[in-house]
Amino acid sequence: MEQALFITFEGIEGCGKTTQVKRLSSRLTLLKIAHVLTLEPGGTPVGRRIRQVLLDSGNRNLSLLAELLLYAADRAQHVEEVVRPALRQGKWVVCDRFFDATVAYQGHARGQDMALIGLLNQKACGGILPDFTFLLDCPVQVGLERAFRRNMEDLTLKQDRFERENEGFHLAVREGYLILAKENPERFVVVNASLSEDEMEEQIWRHLGVRIPKGAD
Amino acid sequence: MEQALFITFEGIEGCGKTTQVKRLSSRLTLLKIAHVLTLEPGGTPVGRRIRQVLLDSGNRNLSLLAELLLYAADRAQHVEEVVRPALRQGKWVVCDRFFDATVAYQGHARGQDMALIGLLNQKACGGILPDFTFLLDCPVQVGLERAFRRNMEDLTLKQDRFERENEGFHLAVREGYLILAKENPERFVVVNASLSEDEMEEQIWRHLGVRIPKGAD
Repeated sequence: MEQALFITFEGIEGCGKTTQVKRLSSRLTLLKIAHVLTLEPGGTPVGRRIRQVLLDSGNRNLSLLAELLLYAADRAQHVEEVVRPALRQGKWVVCDRFFDATVAYQGHARGQDMALIGLLNQKACGGILPDFTFLLDCPVQVGLERAFRRNMEDLTLKQDRFERENEGFHLAVREGYLILAKENPERFVVVNASLSEDEMEEQIWRHLGVRIPKGAD
Repeated sequence: MEQALFITFEGIEGCGKTTQVKRLSSRLTLLKIAHVLTLEPGGTPVGRRIRQVLLDSGNRNLSLLAELLLYAADRAQHVEEVVRPALRQGKWVVCDRFFDATVAYQGHARGQDMALIGLLNQKACGGILPDFTFLLDCPVQVGLERAFRRNMEDLTLKQDRFERENEGFHLAVREGYLILAKENPERFVVVNASLSEDEMEEQIWRHLGVRIPKGAD
C-alpha cells in the first residue's frame, strides 16, 4: 500500500479552499480512502480556543508577535494531536491551511521575522511536510467579493480580523503565496481560482489521480 | 527622578508570591509611587483567554510545545500592552511571574529546548528585563500544603494543571529557580518563604528600600 498523503490547501480569503477541501474529501470517501479532514487554526479543542482569539475582530490590539506565536501554538497541538497520529495510522490528511499560511500572512503581509517563522514552523511540524499543497490563486478583488457574498448569505458569519484588513494586505498575502509556490515546486500546485468550483475540483483531482492507490478504485 | 523599577516575583506553587505582590503594591500606594500590579499568564484581555487554556485542568493533552508557545504569546502581548507602556510613563511594574517561570517550569521541569525558550523570552521581552526578581523559596511540601489549604478555603478555586503535577515536577521547578538565582545574582533576591508573611514583607521591603525615590517619603 502506498503511503498516506498529507495534502494542504492554501490561498487568500474567498479563494474557495474550504469548498475544494470538502469536495476532495467526498471523492476520497467514495473511493473508501481513509482520511482526516482538518484545518488550521482550530483543528483541535485547544486550537478552537486559540482560533477564537485569532479571528475575533474585537481583538484590535493583538500584538503581531503574539499573533504569530498563537498560530505556532495551534500548529504544534494540531500536528501532535491530529496530523501525525492520522498519518501513522495510514490515513490521508486533508488540511485547510497549514504552515505556508504563516509565511504568507505573518511573514510577507505582516512583515514578521522570517527566520523566527521558519524556526517556529520547523519546531511545530516536527519533520512533517505536506506531499501536495494546492494554492488556489485568484485576484484579490475576486476573493474578497466572494468572501463578502458568503458573509452576506450566512448571517451567522461576520468579518474576521483578516477579512477586515485592507487590499494592500491581501495583495501581499497573494504575492507571498506565489513566491512560496515558486520556491517549492516539488509540492505546490497552483490552481486558477477564478475557474468554476467544478473545474477546480477536476484540476485538483487530476493532479492527485496518479497517486490514488490502484486497489482503491 | 529615578527610573521606574520593574519588579518580578517568582516561586513554586504556594510559595506566597501573590500575597507579597499585593503587600508590596499597598506599600507603594502609601508612598504614592505610581505603579502597575500585573501577572503572567493573564495580564491582558487576550492573555486571560490564553491563561484559561493553560491552567484548565481539563486540557490533559496540551502538547509541551503548544504550552510553551502559549506562554510566549501571553508574554509578547503583556510586554507590549502593559509592561512597556507603564515603564515608559514612569510607573513601576510589579509582576506576579515573568520569563524566569518559563525557564523553571517549561525548561527545567518539562525538559523543553532551553535555546528555544531563551529565544522566545528574548523576542517576547524586546529588551525589557526586571530590575529585581524576588524568588520566594521554600520546600516543595510547604508550598503544596499552602496551595492545598488555599483551594480548600476558597471553593471557587480548583487545582490547576500545574498543581496537579507530581512532587518530582515541583522539585525540578524549585531547583530550576535556584539555578536561575545563582546565574543572575545582580537581579535575583532569594527570600525564605518558610517565614511568616510579615517577615517576608519586611525582607523584600528592606531590599527595595534603598531604591525608593527620596522625595516619595
